[in-house]
Amino acid sequence: MSSAPTTVKIAILGPGTVGTEVVRLLERQRDDLEARVGAPIVIAGIYVRDTAVPRDPAIPRGLLTDDADALIASADVVVELMGGIEPARTMILAALERGCAVVTANKALLAAHGPELYEAADAAHADLYFEAAVAGAIPLVRPVRESLAGDHVRRILGIVNGTTNYVLDEMTTRGLGYDVALKRAQELGFAEADPTADVEGYDAAAKAAILASLAFHQRVSLDDVYREGISAITPADVAAASEVGLVIKLLAIAERTEVGVNVRVHPTLVSATHPLAGVHGAFNAVFVEAEAAGELMFYGQGAGGLPTASAVLGDIVSVARHKALGGKGPRESNYADLPVLSIASASTRFQIRMLVVDRPGVLASVAAILAAHGISIESVRQHHTSDRAHAEVVISTHRAPERDLERTVADLAASAVVHEVLSVLRIEGE
Amino acid sequence: MSSAPTTVKIAILGPGTVGTEVVRLLERQRDDLEARVGAPIVIAGIYVRDTAVPRDPAIPRGLLTDDADALIASADVVVELMGGIEPARTMILAALERGCAVVTANKALLAAHGPELYEAADAAHADLYFEAAVAGAIPLVRPVRESLAGDHVRRILGIVNGTTNYVLDEMTTRGLGYDVALKRAQELGFAEADPTADVEGYDAAAKAAILASLAFHQRVSLDDVYREGISAITPADVAAASEVGLVIKLLAIAERTEVGVNVRVHPTLVSATHPLAGVHGAFNAVFVEAEAAGELMFYGQGAGGLPTASAVLGDIVSVARHKALGGKGPRESNYADLPVLSIASASTRFQIRMLVVDRPGVLASVAAILAAHGISIESVRQHHTSDRAHAEVVISTHRAPERDLERTVADLAASAVVHEVLSVLRIEGE
Repeated sequence: MSSAPTTVKIAILGPGTVGTEVVRLLERQRDDLEARVGAPIVIAGIYVRDTAVPRDPAIPRGLLTDDADALIASADVVVELMGGIEPARTMILAALERGCAVVTANKALLAAHGPELYEAADAAHADLYFEAAVAGAIPLVRPVRESLAGDHVRRILGIVNGTTNYVLDEMTTRGLGYDVALKRAQELGFAEADPTADVEGYDAAAKAAILASLAFHQRVSLDDVYREGISAITPADVAAASEVGLVIKLLAIAERTEVGVNVRVHPTLVSATHPLAGVHGAFNAVFVEAEAAGELMFYGQGAGGLPTASAVLGDIVSVARHKALGGKGPRESNYADLPVLSIASASTRFQIRMLVVDRPGVLASVAAILAAHGISIESVRQHHTSDRAHAEVVISTHRAPERDLERTVADLAASAVVHEVLSVLRIEGE
Repeated sequence: MSSAPTTVKIAILGPGTVGTEVVRLLERQRDDLEARVGAPIVIAGIYVRDTAVPRDPAIPRGLLTDDADALIASADVVVELMGGIEPARTMILAALERGCAVVTANKALLAAHGPELYEAADAAHADLYFEAAVAGAIPLVRPVRESLAGDHVRRILGIVNGTTNYVLDEMTTRGLGYDVALKRAQELGFAEADPTADVEGYDAAAKAAILASLAFHQRVSLDDVYREGISAITPADVAAASEVGLVIKLLAIAERTEVGVNVRVHPTLVSATHPLAGVHGAFNAVFVEAEAAGELMFYGQGAGGLPTASAVLGDIVSVARHKALGGKGPRESNYADLPVLSIASASTRFQIRMLVVDRPGVLASVAAILAAHGISIESVRQHHTSDRAHAEVVISTHRAPERDLERTVADLAASAVVHEVLSVLRIEGE
């Protein structure tokens, strides 16, 4: 496989929605694509478990095969679009070992076994591209990997789940409650009947692991990612945020600190003037802070067959071009071996919203609890509530370590003057 | 030059602000960069007109040379950071003819002589990369060229000039007048003492030509770009837009129509919920509508030595990697030969703001003038003014051809019921 192929042979594994669009686009744009690759391209075959199952007319029957080994052995580029862990993992490893370039859209696999796959690609000097696995159609992996090659990424803040962005956006712009907004999302096809994977942040956490690996050349897997979903967010949280010019977004955050990296997914308050605040509906966006390039943001559709196919095709062109140029892929990078830190070591600003007893001196007691933990208050707002016995207090803190915050919230909740801690939200992007 | 170099030799032409940062970053990140390139990289030399002039300490004196020919002849990759048309044009052409890959940040040169340079690169099968020439640090050229390789771009809407975005943003968010906002921009270093190139849209027009070439594989030069600046925008325009949820941005627009492409720069009304509306201060962003990928946006810093150097470095890594892989560059694409259309053929929605005589029947007369030109009205708003003799009428039209609009505005201005046409602004992004 290491000499330049006169024709680049492509194997497609799994002609589902995305795979079918990829085949269609490959055929339709063949002239353009070959000009960019610098060599003819041909689909060597399409792996399916059962060749007898009827397929979309765009899939030529003659190309179907249930012999994955033989197909991979004949290919220069393997495009894995089956999803799931197995047999995708085994087939990708077999392809990389043979020196094939691999393109995959398989987020679950990369989040669970990314480090193993990155190492296998590295060892074989083979390309492993996965643009479609992180944020659908948004060109993100290539910019971070190539355009920022001479730069250092400090932090990534990403809206990487369209369902939760849709729900939070509806709550923010229309004042809907969580349940109503989620129901709308389900009716419009933006949320599944069982929305757990989206609303509890599991999908975003998988993407956060991939993003962190990419940004820091660091092996990060799903288990390293702290995760909180949006199901506890109330209209009162949204309103309290809005009052001071903030909006709530579910963010995947990957951050390089002096001692390591921390990777987390949680509802986050960002300024209404931050570019991420302008990401509406089910769109995705990834905000990158790099040393030399400064602030960058990449915005687009995070899902959908056609957008995802577009991202896969871009990857195919890149790796096919490298194949046509005849060399082995270079080693992607020197992997770093930074500690992946727990959430306790993260440091952010916080907004604590609580019901307190409505009498003089209460604010002083609350402030004393924060002071005892070394947490500095940036602002306090107080509202009277309808029951007259309680007031609502919203405290924004200066940057503080997460571990101090946890203890502070516990002390607040236990305090005689605090009736209830209503919510604790992190503030980012400043 | 066509066999794989064991070491990739880089020539830097012009060690100004950006060039110095590039040299500094190249040295600081050498290990990382070489891992990504897959071969050792070395700075073969740095061309300066006068080797005796003192330089930044980051520039090794021993690498300076005033012999550009000899330097280019010894290089694999030539990085042109001199700016201006000559001798940059001649040196780049010489480098391409020799099969060198070329990286340039020279917007003026590409806008004026882009087609000649793209053809020379194509003929020599050499890479010509220019990420830093369009929108500073924003990775844009590579995503459009590679990630969207199998897609078709329909339209690009870009905020590509930081000065004008800063001025319009100050007018919008602080209610400042144009002169005051411009003065602030000058004080903060966002605008030059002579701001003409920015505020009259010349800089944006140059970038529009490059963007259009890129998006449509079409040779577009500065002369093909229709251009209007922002100096006529008044606080009343901003307020009238804001009343109906619109904001004014100076956009570079490149559009593929059924009969050709049209490329233009003018103040444009976009919805306050459009992602471009969330681009504040001196930031840049480019919004892309593609057939398969859908809507994408790329956001970041459009200028500055360090961000620009970051973009140049990303390009160096890409072309050096191709050199290390040993092949000639592929032909970039099949260039299209679409007609580049005049502004008269463009079609947009319009907002016409005018002072009319304040008496019954005037709206009917105004509507009749639009109807006579086949222009359909979407909404009309009318305000009384302080002088009582006149009313202000703001008409938003449905999509209409620019040529019809011009005639309509002429007829409105000549009408007895119209005292003055205050402004005509295009509405985009819907």
